[in-house]
Amino acid sequence: MSTHTMSWVLTDVATETYVENFSITNEDLAIESRQPFSITKRRLRGGLSDGVDLIEVVNGPLRFTICPTRGMGIWRGQFQKWDLGWKSPVHGPVHPNYVNRDELGGIGWLQGFDEWIVRCGLNNNGGPAIDKLLDNTGAEQSMALPLHGRIANIPAHHVAVTVETKAPYTLTVTGLVDESMLFFPQLRLQTEIKTNPGSPSFTLRDRVINLRSQPAEFELLYHCNFGQPLLDDGSKFRAPVKRLAPINDVALKAIDRWNTYPAPTAGVIEECFLMQLLGDEETNRTIALLESPGGDKACALRFSLEQLPWFTLWRNPGAISDGYVTGLEPATDFPNAKPFERAKGRVLTLAPGESYDAELTIELAGSREEVEQLHQEIGAIQQQSQIQVDREIPADWSPAAE
Amino acid sequence: MSTHTMSWVLTDVATETYVENFSITNEDLAIESRQPFSITKRRLRGGLSDGVDLIEVVNGPLRFTICPTRGMGIWRGQFQKWDLGWKSPVHGPVHPNYVNRDELGGIGWLQGFDEWIVRCGLNNNGGPAIDKLLDNTGAEQSMALPLHGRIANIPAHHVAVTVETKAPYTLTVTGLVDESMLFFPQLRLQTEIKTNPGSPSFTLRDRVINLRSQPAEFELLYHCNFGQPLLDDGSKFRAPVKRLAPINDVALKAIDRWNTYPAPTAGVIEECFLMQLLGDEETNRTIALLESPGGDKACALRFSLEQLPWFTLWRNPGAISDGYVTGLEPATDFPNAKPFERAKGRVLTLAPGESYDAELTIELAGSREEVEQLHQEIGAIQQQSQIQVDREIPADWSPAAE
Amino acid sequence: MSTHTMSWVLTDVATETYVENFSITNEDLAIESRQPFSITKRRLRGGLSDGVDLIEVVNGPLRFTICPTRGMGIWRGQFQKWDLGWKSPVHGPVHPNYVNRDELGGIGWLQGFDEWIVRCGLNNNGGPAIDKLLDNTGAEQSMALPLHGRIANIPAHHVAVTVETKAPYTLTVTGLVDESMLFFPQLRLQTEIKTNPGSPSFTLRDRVINLRSQPAEFELLYHCNFGQPLLDDGSKFRAPVKRLAPINDVALKAIDRWNTYPAPTAGVIEECFLMQLLGDEETNRTIALLESPGGDKACALRFSLEQLPWFTLWRNPGAISDGYVTGLEPATDFPNAKPFERAKGRVLTLAPGESYDAELTIELAGSREEVEQLHQEIGAIQQQSQIQVDREIPADWSPAAE
Repeated sequence: MSTHTMSWVLTDVATETYVENFSITNEDLAIESRQPFSITKRRLRGGLSDGVDLIEVVNGPLRFTICPTRGMGIWRGQFQKWDLGWKSPVHGPVHPNYVNRDELGGIGWLQGFDEWIVRCGLNNNGGPAIDKLLDNTGAEQSMALPLHGRIANIPAHHVAVTVETKAPYTLTVTGLVDESMLFFPQLRLQTEIKTNPGSPSFTLRDRVINLRSQPAEFELLYHCNFGQPLLDDGSKFRAPVKRLAPINDVALKAIDRWNTYPAPTAGVIEECFLMQLLGDEETNRTIALLESPGGDKACALRFSLEQLPWFTLWRNPGAISDGYVTGLEPATDFPNAKPFERAKGRVLTLAPGESYDAELTIELAGSREEVEQLHQEIGAIQQQSQIQVDREIPADWSPAAE
Repeated sequence: MSTHTMSWVLTDVATETYVENFSITNEDLAIESRQPFSITKRRLRGGLSDGVDLIEVVNGPLRFTICPTRGMGIWRGQFQKWDLGWKSPVHGPVHPNYVNRDELGGIGWLQGFDEWIVRCGLNNNGGPAIDKLLDNTGAEQSMALPLHGRIANIPAHHVAVTVETKAPYTLTVTGLVDESMLFFPQLRLQTEIKTNPGSPSFTLRDRVINLRSQPAEFELLYHCNFGQPLLDDGSKFRAPVKRLAPINDVALKAIDRWNTYPAPTAGVIEECFLMQLLGDEETNRTIALLESPGGDKACALRFSLEQLPWFTLWRNPGAISDGYVTGLEPATDFPNAKPFERAKGRVLTLAPGESYDAELTIELAGSREEVEQLHQEIGAIQQQSQIQVDREIPADWSPAAE
Repeated sequence: MSTHTMSWVLTDVATETYVENFSITNEDLAIESRQPFSITKRRLRGGLSDGVDLIEVVNGPLRFTICPTRGMGIWRGQFQKWDLGWKSPVHGPVHPNYVNRDELGGIGWLQGFDEWIVRCGLNNNGGPAIDKLLDNTGAEQSMALPLHGRIANIPAHHVAVTVETKAPYTLTVTGLVDESMLFFPQLRLQTEIKTNPGSPSFTLRDRVINLRSQPAEFELLYHCNFGQPLLDDGSKFRAPVKRLAPINDVALKAIDRWNTYPAPTAGVIEECFLMQLLGDEETNRTIALLESPGGDKACALRFSLEQLPWFTLWRNPGAISDGYVTGLEPATDFPNAKPFERAKGRVLTLAPGESYDAELTIELAGSREEVEQLHQEIGAIQQQSQIQVDREIPADWSPAAE
């Protein structure tokens, strides 16, 4: 670490370090940033949130809340005056101990699902499935993989805050989350969540490390979820798309309105579209965004197709009470059951000690001009090719094809 | 709320309000009640109770302890000098995180069962079963329903205390408990637990609200459990009964002694009797009670047959060490597996936004005269008809009939 | 308790007693022990350890940490300068609420497994299995038994510390852990963990009590786990052995090197050897030890074959990162699935109120001379008979024989 940083460890289980309440501001640090900033940490009490730690980063126009107790996910955010995230029927943040992953046929993960940005993985990131794993005796055993995996319900064992004392005064929250046990994959998520004072964006810089002496499969998906105000009647999804396909019959019926959203609709069934995006020809980086009905607000996701080559758009525009929400989901693969993804060659493997980097930047646009600029950027990439829209469920992308 | 009340919020997760310790007495409030009263709240530490909140209400002769962490159940009580509740082999109150509902074939609920009054529900209130529910894609999925449902192991997200500053100085503890998750029923329990200083009774005023835009089935049962001293050799159950039936062969053999209790008996197997009670001809309200051997103590349950039409008497007079206990259980249905109850038309459905009210008054009698008066009340209602006793297991009431 | 003791209750759930931080030293107590000693208690925060209580006993040369939250297991130790215990891929101590026993086909216990000495039991101590238990109606039900049972993930409801104020100033930590619920076995573990200032040893004096009015089966195994420095390339296991057999084909292939250890080896599969040890002819007590490569360090287990007649040696010399570890496991039976152990007559039964005592002394040797003395002791017992080595999997000891 450079001499131009200040750093605080908030949690380190190995050394029994734990800071319950923490607060710093630019003033505390005598930093003359044009933009005032703060990082505060608190521990929640009561209800399903009892014992949950939250770290709130305010960089000026943007604020977001990191949840170390839930695998360093991003619980909620706010840009200018508008909320980022969604209203789930579950009011969280929910402590992992209230989430029983195997309940209800393996979908207990939903008991804790109310975050803005939640990672799915690391051993599996898709639907519940029975998979084969080698047990302690080297024999193959059938084991249930729970919906969206375990990483979002494991607390970080190390959490730290760093502030650069020179412009641009970068603010960083780091965390280590281990998905690990004897005889099984030992995957570590190392995350750095970074922003600069005054910036309309922040970045998750994640590294997944195979700590074991054996090769380990892994899957990683960023489930980025939006409700009102970004999602509303007439909101649009935009991205440079190479190929687009429906995941099942419900999505197939909706194929012609895949990128526009209706008003909250009671009784709607979710629609999932699977995509391969196009990236910038030089960098292979891309951009996907959700845009408000007026076109004056947008939240863009920036990432590299080298790192996150597959994209899922989850549309669930139900009644407000039921969860009016859409998910933009860049990932290493599709969130199908792992055996299917493995068969299609989309499950990655890390050699012993090997790591995999994935970076996701969340960028807010708060005016028509800024949103327009994003359109142009997407348009430029889209010029490489026309969108190929599958009008049947593709057998290589979805098990529903059969 | 009237201007004649004082009110304190003890927990409100939405606003991050949480009061760990709380205590008020009539003196603190300068209330000149003839009966001194107090409401105190504490948080337990250690063992299976670590992190459990308890609210103790003392109204003079009667005290009872509400457990917000366990779905606003009533953990224990005391009237005059005698204990209300029972001695379970589990020493609680047990934090829900130690209860693994799906363990042991779906009966993990028993790991936390030691309360005086515990609600069973809200999606299901009976035995473990495989049921069909629609999943996120609208497809029917088989899912395991755990014994007695989830509501008793969900903490309240809002808890408040209210005291009326005018006679009768009503004391109220309110709570909100949500059994809810994305794609699934979203049922809210709103409870007001009320008593007056000096009163031998308190009332649970419950409302179950369907928060979802879709119709929701629900089931609700009040599992009111008694051990010594109310339950002992020669104790009697009394209620105005229309029809009574054994739930299985074990109960069938005990049919002629359904309303009297033996001394604690090692190795006894539980006996369950299903009943339809009679209500007052005008109000359709009824009363069921357990009476001590001497006939000088009783605990009565008062409720409306409009709200709670079905009644189960659970007799488990085992050795003291094993749980010498009987349960009086007014409910919306019988605690059979939900698919059976549905087939027999006893599962209720709430329209979107609709709510269902259920009120249960617990009333203590501490002298032979008071107990006698309750007898007369029951006798008056019983005059409508004779008890119909089924001497075989009825196919409409129990799946054991086959 | 004698008048020459001082005593402190740290946890007593029944009386709502809980001491978060505790510390005593010989100086605090004005005890003129030649060896300074201390007993301290703390509560961990953060990560998977959040809410875990630890009690550290330092008797001079020896220190060890008791974990009341995890069934009074021994988390770690240190003798002179060397560590006792092992490095698990799970970094604990892990709070039981993060352990989902039934996950992954019943091996969720591994999610919390990083202790030096952990008890397996009490209803079952072996591999996951489907077993028959009588339910509330007296009917036989199939229920899943989780790997190594429940006792290690149940917190003690009573914890106390006692110090004798006369030489040898014995230090004792006592705990009560109940594995109990309505309709099911009610087994209490009562443990006294004792050491003397300056001693190279400590003793677990355990009593398992059947609290129920019905007979109860039980199984108990002490899973004593060692990594570096005691376990290393060339370490030796020693014990007076009557009969030794491989548990499966993997162990069969390793039968000729059963008592020596390789260096950490990536990709190794565990080898388990089942044994019947020989005991001293008078007392039927025996000794089993792990010895460092140089022969200058050893940890011995002393116990009675009357109490713990069966012994398992678990060898898992994997890569350091994966868990380089061996387990010495004296027990009431072998850690096979319970139905197999029952069929072979090794599952014990306690009558109502009956108890079973098991005592295990952990003794450290820190010099070649002390280790030599242990060799001689083992050699003297071994003279009774030669080791019988089974060169096939024995049908009476392992279900893999078939």
